[in-house]
Amino acid sequence: MKFTIEKTCSITGARAGILETAHGIIETPIFMPVATKGSVRGMPWDTVEDLGASIVLGNTYHLHIRPGEQIIERAGGLHNWSKWPKAYLTDSGGFQVFSFARRGQAKIDNQGVTFKDDLEGKTHRIGPTESMAIQKSLGADIVMAFDHCPPANATFEDIDIAVQRTYEWAQKCLDFKLQDYQSLFLIVQGGRFEELRQKSLDQLISLNAEGYALGGISVGESREEVDKVVKSMAHKLPDNKPRYLMGVGTPRDLIVGISSGIDMFDCVLPTRISRHGSYFGESGKAESITKKSNTEDLDSPLVKNCTCATCLRFSKAYLKHLFQRSEITVYYYLSLHNLHTLLNLSRQMRSAILENKMQDFLNNHPMGHLAFIK
Amino acid sequence: MKFTIEKTCSITGARAGILETAHGIIETPIFMPVATKGSVRGMPWDTVEDLGASIVLGNTYHLHIRPGEQIIERAGGLHNWSKWPKAYLTDSGGFQVFSFARRGQAKIDNQGVTFKDDLEGKTHRIGPTESMAIQKSLGADIVMAFDHCPPANATFEDIDIAVQRTYEWAQKCLDFKLQDYQSLFLIVQGGRFEELRQKSLDQLISLNAEGYALGGISVGESREEVDKVVKSMAHKLPDNKPRYLMGVGTPRDLIVGISSGIDMFDCVLPTRISRHGSYFGESGKAESITKKSNTEDLDSPLVKNCTCATCLRFSKAYLKHLFQRSEITVYYYLSLHNLHTLLNLSRQMRSAILENKMQDFLNNHPMGHLAFIK
Repeated sequence: MKFTIEKTCSITGARAGILETAHGIIETPIFMPVATKGSVRGMPWDTVEDLGASIVLGNTYHLHIRPGEQIIERAGGLHNWSKWPKAYLTDSGGFQVFSFARRGQAKIDNQGVTFKDDLEGKTHRIGPTESMAIQKSLGADIVMAFDHCPPANATFEDIDIAVQRTYEWAQKCLDFKLQDYQSLFLIVQGGRFEELRQKSLDQLISLNAEGYALGGISVGESREEVDKVVKSMAHKLPDNKPRYLMGVGTPRDLIVGISSGIDMFDCVLPTRISRHGSYFGESGKAESITKKSNTEDLDSPLVKNCTCATCLRFSKAYLKHLFQRSEITVYYYLSLHNLHTLLNLSRQMRSAILENKMQDFLNNHPMGHLAFIK
Repeated sequence: MKFTIEKTCSITGARAGILETAHGIIETPIFMPVATKGSVRGMPWDTVEDLGASIVLGNTYHLHIRPGEQIIERAGGLHNWSKWPKAYLTDSGGFQVFSFARRGQAKIDNQGVTFKDDLEGKTHRIGPTESMAIQKSLGADIVMAFDHCPPANATFEDIDIAVQRTYEWAQKCLDFKLQDYQSLFLIVQGGRFEELRQKSLDQLISLNAEGYALGGISVGESREEVDKVVKSMAHKLPDNKPRYLMGVGTPRDLIVGISSGIDMFDCVLPTRISRHGSYFGESGKAESITKKSNTEDLDSPLVKNCTCATCLRFSKAYLKHLFQRSEITVYYYLSLHNLHTLLNLSRQMRSAILENKMQDFLNNHPMGHLAFIK
C-alpha cells in the first residue's frame, strides 16, 4: 500500500490524497459503503461501482460466523468470493464482540474476548491473533487491529484499561504475518477523555503502523462530543499516513471530519435509513419521504440539483407511494441517493482541497460552519 | 396500435410478430414483468430495461386504491409518473375484486362489483365503465376489459353466468372512449369447460376488439388443465391480433403457450419466488438456493451457460450465503436471473420461429416435449 498526500488545505488541514492498493487506487477523502456480510445492503455491485465507490468495508465477526473465513479463503478471498473487484477493508470484529460484552454475553480478559454468537449461541474466542488470522484468510486490502472498544459511558479507569489493552493487542497484531499486499491500521481509543486519547495515540504512533483510525466513536456520545474528539485528535495522527474515522458518515460528519484532516469514513446509515424511508435532504440532514406534502409533489426530486440517478428520474410523490406500499425497490432508490450524497460530497471536498477552494466550499455549504466551530 | 405477424411456425402454430405502441415496439412473443403498484418488485427500471423488457403490467385495482388514478393522471399518466418510458399494459382490476368475492368481501351483480378494499376497508364499486375510466386516467398502452373471473372450482352454471356477464361488460368497455393511443383487449372466460370457453370466444370475437386474452387461468387448476385450455383455445383466437395468456409465466408455460400460438405473457413468479430463495434452474423448473450442496459450491452459477448478469458474476455459494443472512441484495440477483430466463426464452423462441427452427429448439430444450403433448 502506498499513500501520497497531494495537497493539504492551509486553512482547515483537510487533505487530498491517493491510496494505492492491490485492488485499485482510492482517491481520498473517501466514504466507504458498508458491506457487512459481503454485500452493500440492497445495492448490486454494479450500482456501487457506478456511484464511484473504490473501497467497501466487510465485517470480520459476521463473516467469521457465516460463511466462515475458510470458505472465503477457498474462493480466493473476499474480492473473488463476493465479486467486488475494488478494494476491501475489514474491521476487526472488536466492535461487535464488545457490544456483546455490553449485553453481558461476553467475557473480556487480557488476551481477548470469549462470547456466544447471536446465531447458534456457540462459544467463540477472539483475540488479536485470532482476528488477524481470520482477516488474513478474508484477504482485505486493509485490515484493522483488534482493539478494546468500551462503551461511551465507561469510567476513566475502564477506558484506561481499554487503552492499555488496545496497545498490547496492537503489538500482537503487528507481529502477525498478514498477506504481502495487506496493510494493518491501528485504532486509537480513549473515549471522551482527552488525556487517554492522547496516551493511546502516543502509544500507537510509536508502533509505526501503515495507517491510523479513531475508534470508539459513535458508541453513544452526542454529535458534539464526537466533533470535539475528531477536531482535537485528527491532526495529531501521523501526517503521511491515512487517517480513518470509524463508523461515522453523514454529510455533517464528512464536513467536520474532512475539515479536521480525516481521509476515510464508513457508516451503515446511508443504506439503513432508507429502510425507514429516510434520505439525506437539501441541507444534508436526514428527512422522511413520508412527509405529508410529498404525497402530491409530482415535480420535485429528493434534492434539487442532485445528480444521482434517483433524483434525475423520480418525484417525491412516486417514491413516497413506493415506500408506503412496501415496494422494496424504493430502498434501492433511496440508498442510491444516500450513498451518492456521501461519495459525491467527498469528491466535491477533494476538488475543493486540490483547487484551494475549501473556504468557498464551506461558506457555501449549509453545514459548512460546523467545520469552524472550535 | 399496430400488430404484424412476421412468421408463423408451420409445425406448432407459434408466431413471431411486431406490436407497435405509442411507447415503443414490442417484439412478440414477449414476457411482461409485473409492476403491480408501478414498480417491478425490487428491480430498478434501468435493470428491467437492460433485461430487454419492452412492456410491463400495472394493476388497476392497486393503483386505484393508492395513489389513486387522479394523481397519476396529473403526473401525465403511468409512464411519466413511474418513469417507465416503454409500454404499459393495465389489467382491469377484475381478477382482484373477484378474489375479494371468493373471500366473501364483495358482492357481484350484473353491473359490477361492490367491495371493501384491503387497506382502509372503504367501500368501492367497480364495473366495466368505472374500470375503463380508471384505466383511461392511468394511460397504459393496452387496457384490459373488466371481466367476470370465477374461481377454478365454480360450477358450469356459475361459469356460464360469468361468460355472459363478461360479454355484456365487454360491450360496455368497447363503448367507452379511451385515449386515442390506447387499445382494448377482451378476455375470454369459460373456466375448464370447453363448451363455455368456445361460447365466450365466439361472443367476444364478434365484438372485433384489438386484441384477445385467455383469462380465468391459473386460478387454482392443475398445470395440465391450464395446458389443455391453452392448447385448445389459443389457435382459435383471431390470427391477426395479439393473443395474451394472463397471469401465466414460467419457462414451461412459455414453451407450451408460445408453441400454441400465444404472443404475450405476464406473471409475478419471477420476482416472487426470489423472495423465497428460488430461481429457474437448468431445466426451467424452480429450484431452491438453500440446497445443501450449494454451501460449498464456489464454482457454479445458478445455471450453466446462462448469460444473465447474476450467473456471469456469482457462485451459488455466495448467493446462498446472502439469502441465508437475509441480505436483500440477493432478491435483486435472483429476480434478475428469473426475469432474464423468461425474457431470453421468449427471444430464443422468437428467433427459432423466424428461422424455421422451432422443431430443433423444442427437441433440444429439456421441456420442449410439453409442446407436443396433445
